[in-house]
Amino acid sequence: MDRRGNVFEVRAVGRVHSSRAEIVDDDWGEVEATISLLPPFEPESLAGLTEFSHLEVLYLFHEVDSASVCNGARHPRGRPDWPLVGIFAQRAKDRPNRLGLTTAELIGVEGTSIRLRGLDALDGTPVLDIKPYMEEFGPRTAVREPRWARELMADYF
Amino acid sequence: MDRRGNVFEVRAVGRVHSSRAEIVDDDWGEVEATISLLPPFEPESLAGLTEFSHLEVLYLFHEVDSASVCNGARHPRGRPDWPLVGIFAQRAKDRPNRLGLTTAELIGVEGTSIRLRGLDALDGTPVLDIKPYMEEFGPRTAVREPRWARELMADYF
Repeated sequence: MDRRGNVFEVRAVGRVHSSRAEIVDDDWGEVEATISLLPPFEPESLAGLTEFSHLEVLYLFHEVDSASVCNGARHPRGRPDWPLVGIFAQRAKDRPNRLGLTTAELIGVEGTSIRLRGLDALDGTPVLDIKPYMEEFGPRTAVREPRWARELMADYF
Repeated sequence: MDRRGNVFEVRAVGRVHSSRAEIVDDDWGEVEATISLLPPFEPESLAGLTEFSHLEVLYLFHEVDSASVCNGARHPRGRPDWPLVGIFAQRAKDRPNRLGLTTAELIGVEGTSIRLRGLDALDGTPVLDIKPYMEEFGPRTAVREPRWARELMADYF
């Protein structure tokens, strides 16, 4: 922690093993991946996990160079036909702290390995947290999002 | 980053201002809070944000002492009538990396301040990322969760 208390250390709790080792924009929906927990985690840290159908996985976009992080606004995917939007109004990987977040379907657990479907993280990605998806944590009122987001997401999963 | 490449630094991008300054378990739904971005972030980092109805906020449970973090299994809220479940099968704050994640309703943006409803973070909480909620990033198949989770969440929001 620095003097102003704004810097924190986080540690990978696991790593992603995926057939996707290079950056790909779309078609993540059917990709299967495994998260292998690192020491000191034992199978008990996953006790009861299979009672849930989906997990939220927080991870680090570790292949993003800190020099390419955007702190301002950019066109999603660099497409000039989509609006210039702030980095906090999009989910691009080139973002402050390089944190990724995805809801993926749980296939199964074996020891300290978690098998998932639809995790958009490359092979080797450091995992920072795993949370069970609870419907109650989702939006509790009607969802609204702009057209560019619907267009971008159309082929993503 | 340490030798094994498993430790990373993250930096607060903003702080939460909330009427709730002490740990409370329930009734977060109507609580309004503001996230104030820290330098170097300018209003452009939030451009287009109000096109979205909800945000996902990643934050740090900064009041959790690292000594109280659970790496194994525990009863949610210490309740023996609920099962012993792994720390990654629950959303307790006493978790590795102390990362919190909530979907909150966006009320409005003014400069570098974001007004939200239903953010379960205490006053002063460091915010690590803000992402627009996109329906497509939610579960794409039917959601299943255990009874204890439904019971725990009944009065949460």
